[in-house]
Parts: sequence; C-alpha cells; structure tokens
Amino acid sequence: MTQDAQNSELRLKQRPTKDVSPDDFTLADSPIEAPQAGQVLVKVKWLSMDTYLFERTIGNAMGPAIPLGSRMPGRALGTVVSGSLPAGTFVSGDFGWQKYATVDASAVATLEHTAAPDTWYLSALGAPGLTAWLALHKVLQPAAGKTLLVSGAAGTVGSIVGQLAREMGLNVIGIAGGAERCNWLTQHGYQAAIDRKTVTDWKQAMLAAAPNGIDFYYDNAGGRVLEAAVQAIAPGGRIVLCGHSSEYTSPTAQITATDLLYKGLTVHGFRVWDYAAQFKEARAALLELIIQKKLHVEETIHSGLASAPAALGAMLNGNGLGKHLVKVHEE
Amino acid sequence: MTQDAQNSELRLKQRPTKDVSPDDFTLADSPIEAPQAGQVLVKVKWLSMDTYLFERTIGNAMGPAIPLGSRMPGRALGTVVSGSLPAGTFVSGDFGWQKYATVDASAVATLEHTAAPDTWYLSALGAPGLTAWLALHKVLQPAAGKTLLVSGAAGTVGSIVGQLAREMGLNVIGIAGGAERCNWLTQHGYQAAIDRKTVTDWKQAMLAAAPNGIDFYYDNAGGRVLEAAVQAIAPGGRIVLCGHSSEYTSPTAQITATDLLYKGLTVHGFRVWDYAAQFKEARAALLELIIQKKLHVEETIHSGLASAPAALGAMLNGNGLGKHLVKVHEE
Repeated sequence: MTQDAQNSELRLKQRPTKDVSPDDFTLADSPIEAPQAGQVLVKVKWLSMDTYLFERTIGNAMGPAIPLGSRMPGRALGTVVSGSLPAGTFVSGDFGWQKYATVDASAVATLEHTAAPDTWYLSALGAPGLTAWLALHKVLQPAAGKTLLVSGAAGTVGSIVGQLAREMGLNVIGIAGGAERCNWLTQHGYQAAIDRKTVTDWKQAMLAAAPNGIDFYYDNAGGRVLEAAVQAIAPGGRIVLCGHSSEYTSPTAQITATDLLYKGLTVHGFRVWDYAAQFKEARAALLELIIQKKLHVEETIHSGLASAPAALGAMLNGNGLGKHLVKVHEE
Repeated sequence: MTQDAQNSELRLKQRPTKDVSPDDFTLADSPIEAPQAGQVLVKVKWLSMDTYLFERTIGNAMGPAIPLGSRMPGRALGTVVSGSLPAGTFVSGDFGWQKYATVDASAVATLEHTAAPDTWYLSALGAPGLTAWLALHKVLQPAAGKTLLVSGAAGTVGSIVGQLAREMGLNVIGIAGGAERCNWLTQHGYQAAIDRKTVTDWKQAMLAAAPNGIDFYYDNAGGRVLEAAVQAIAPGGRIVLCGHSSEYTSPTAQITATDLLYKGLTVHGFRVWDYAAQFKEARAALLELIIQKKLHVEETIHSGLASAPAALGAMLNGNGLGKHLVKVHEE
C-alpha cells in the first residue's frame, strides 16, 4: 500500500455562520504518528458527510463545539497500515478529516467486504441504513396500504426509506428540493414528490399529495415541515423524528401538545444507538435487499481531502443526491 | 320507582370566562318527554364531572361550543323508567344535566351490578379507569423498578394510575395541589408527592423527587408541567398525554422537537376510544383488582342537580379528591 510521507488534516479555522464555507477550515500538513501498543495506523479512504459535523463546528444540545484550530472529527472507512491489527484490514471509525489516523484499535470496527460496495458501510449498511430500517420496522411499524410521508427524501436516509417502504407495500410520498431530486424520488420507491423549493403552504401541499390522508410521517427535516406534518397527519398517526436538516439555518420545530392529545398522535425521537440490540437483524435484512437488487444507494462523490468543506456544504444544502462521500486518496 | 311530575334541567346561560360559576347556568323546569318507539325514559341518578364539559361551554379544537340556552350534555348513570328497555334496567349514556332523559335506546349502554359500587362505572370501570389501565399497560408499558411521574395524581384518572402503577412494581411520584391531596397520594400507591401549589421551579422539583431519574411521565396536566417534564425526564423516556387540566386557564404546552430527538423521547397522545378493542381486557383486569381490594376509588359527592355547576368548578380547580359526582335525586 502506498503511503505518503506526511499526513494532511483539515482544522476548524472559524465557526460557520450561515453556510459552511471552505474558508472556515485550514488544510495543514502534520507528521504521521506511529501507532503505540494497542493502536493502529489507518489510511483513511472515505469520509462520511453528516449533519452532526456541522453541529460540532458550532455546538448544540448534543455537545459543545470543537475548539478552533482542532482537527475536524468524522466517521470514515479506511485500511490498516500497521499496528495491532493485520495490515490491509478494512475498518471503520471516527478517523476525522485527515489522510492518516492513529487511533486505539478498540475504537475501530473491523468490516468485511459484502455484496454491496464498500462505501455502503457509510450508507445502507451503516447508521443511515440502520436508521431507515429500524425506524420503519421497530417504531412506525406501518401496515401495507397505508400512506407514509418522508422529508429529506433524496438524502442519505430518506433515499433508503422510500425503497424500504415501497417493499413494505406502503404508498410513499417524498419531500425534496428541486425538480431533479423529485424526479429521482419517483424513480426510487416514491409514488409522489413534493418539491420543497416551490411550496408556499406546507400543510396544503402535504394534503394535496396524499388524497387518502397521511398515516405516518418520517421526519428528516424538523422545523416548519415537521410543524405542518403534525397539522396534516391523520388522527391516530405516528411520527418518527430522525433528523432536522431544515433546522440547519432555521428554528427548531415546536409541537403543540393538545394537537397530539386531540388527534391521538405519537411522536418518537429516534436515536439509532438505542436500538443496537437490533442492528444484526436490521443489517441482515438490508443485505438481503441489496443481494436481491431491491435497494439502490445513490452516492455523490467528492474527490480529495480538500473537498470536504465544500462536500459538507453541498450535503447540508441538498445539492447532489443520496450519500455524500469524500474520497480521500486518489488511488 | 318514584317519578317527579316535571323534569328539571341546567341550561348554559353565558360562557364561563375564568372560572365556571353557578351564574353561568339556569335551572329550569321542563316537561318529561314520553319515550317514542325505540326510545327509553331514564331517571338520571349520577352525573359525571369531566373536563370536556367545560370545553363544551367555550368550544375548542375538539368541537364547537354548545349554543347558549341549551341544556348541558354530560355522561351519567341512570335507571330505565319506561320505553323499549325493561323498567329498572341500570344504564349509562350521555343523559345531560337533567333529572329525566328521553333518549334512543341505541345510545344507551346496559350495565350490570358488580363487586364495585355502581358509581365506579364513571371512574374505575368507566373511561377514567380504562384510560389509566390502557395508557399504562398498552402505551407506557413500564418495567418493574422504573420510576413513573404522574400529574393530576389526586384526580379521577391519576388516583387510579398511582395504585395500578404500584401494583406493577413501579416507583410512583405524584403531583397534586395542596397538603391534603399530597397526603392522600402517599397513602394510595404514590411513594412521593410534589405539591404543585408550592413549586417554583418545576424541573428542579421533579428531579428532586426522583433521585434515580424519571423514566415515564403520565400527563394529566399539560401546560408548563408537561414542558418541564420533557426537560426532566431521562433519555429514552416515554410520555403519555391523557389530559390537560392545567390548561383550563393557561396556555397549552409547546414541545421542542429537538428535545425529543436528542433525548430519544416518545410522546403519545392518548384517546381512550382508539383502544376500544382492548376495553374488555382492561375491565376484567380492573374488576379483578377491585375484588382483591387492591384498588380504592376516591369520590367527592355533590348533592342535587343544582350543585352541578359548583361541582364542575371544584373538579376543575382541584378542590376535593378523586372522582366528582353529582347525585341527582335524593332517593
């Protein structure tokens, strides 16, 4: 395996204000740290672009912001170069925005190559796929023939949700930004699409897209989209909260308690790690769908470590379909 | 059975503003209507005092206000005088605030005398008991040893919840207004009581009463009590909304969506009629507890039809324990 003489890493220079900009980060060389006992040196191959990375730059209720000048964290895939695991081992972990990571072997998950592309460990076989499958099968548990509304439908999680839900026999309606993304939706599991860029009255748009009513809502958006869904959903409906992409630059949703009480609604805040005992079942089900070619995973690939800030911005703004990944090394 | 020559009924004269007052109603005589084919004449024995009666005087999202001058509705128990059911049959229905009701037999439920007092058909064997049992056993489903917080704990539903939860092996903490009610709580299933009349910081009061954390919250209050419970409850907690007594004169609760997402909370708006398929199971379980003398139902009895407005006001303001009932006839 080729190895560079130097590591490169992206450090947070200033806190993003409205949009994430490359100017908010500094690309710097640093020495490659030799692994100590119990550590491994990993050549970082793929960086996963996720909303939480933005949250770590400014801090939120989940945790404080990282210090200015420190390296960005980040889930990633890589290959062991040396240390306490065999060279060449395929691994995942929080390797951060850098070309080489020296980390404790105990913080690394060893992976095996499957019928799916390796990168799918960051989408359909990783947290997004688990989130999609578990929130559908263990939380919403919709009966066939019911109607499911999904926001962030062309994103990493939503693009999987639509296909899984169609396999479950649901009518699936997706919300995404722009004609290209809405077109992608109706080709990948969704029966109807709402273009968020043209919506003026959210409740009206939802009801118009679901003439038989909305029974379930899979929320990847939060904000006013969620607030409208609480109004639009049918009595007895169930809502699962899995993300809040629309709150990237706007206020968090407020849910009126009496709306839940009078309509008999359930709202479930979903954290995938609370369902770790069911990961094995979920992964097996996802892999089976992959083998049967019933699950297509869309990816938007960004080339080179230096592209990570722009990649994160594109993901947050909904430019590009499906899972955003940064290919760290050329070879 | 004695029968009066005239009916008496309470009509809504003006809409209550802050508190329900006897001045808002008129007591008027009216003729007793002879039952037509398919109807029954019922001698009304017990009126049930419920929050929804107040809501019907002013209207809300559940439905419009009743017209001024019209007779108050109201769930009640009674005995058939004549008509298409045998005289003496014990029945329940929406007989309204009057001494005699002439109603369609199809809108009347025929009851049987049980091991419990007849009035318990309006509490432990009626909607309040079903709400308490079903929301615990079918929604919250708490494991023994966990901690449950209950608001409106000395009310009709809450006073039953505490006893059922203790039977389930839970640590139960109740919220009620005043020393007398808090004292009643700790004698009837609750291990600790929070006096809402002395609380200044709700979240702090809840955490202080639950040193091991709050796993479940049974909400009969809404408003700022619910808002504080969302803050105080432990990650992964479950909340069931069953009432909103505190919103009688204050704003409805607003729940921040990210609090649900980050803490992995579930909020379930409970409407007892959505669980009709499980009423039989719930009633059998409740009756078994009654027979085993493990369920004590507290009642506050008001005498005479004319006392109904004051009885409703007392119920809404938390004056008097447990179920508020109006005994319509003296004999």
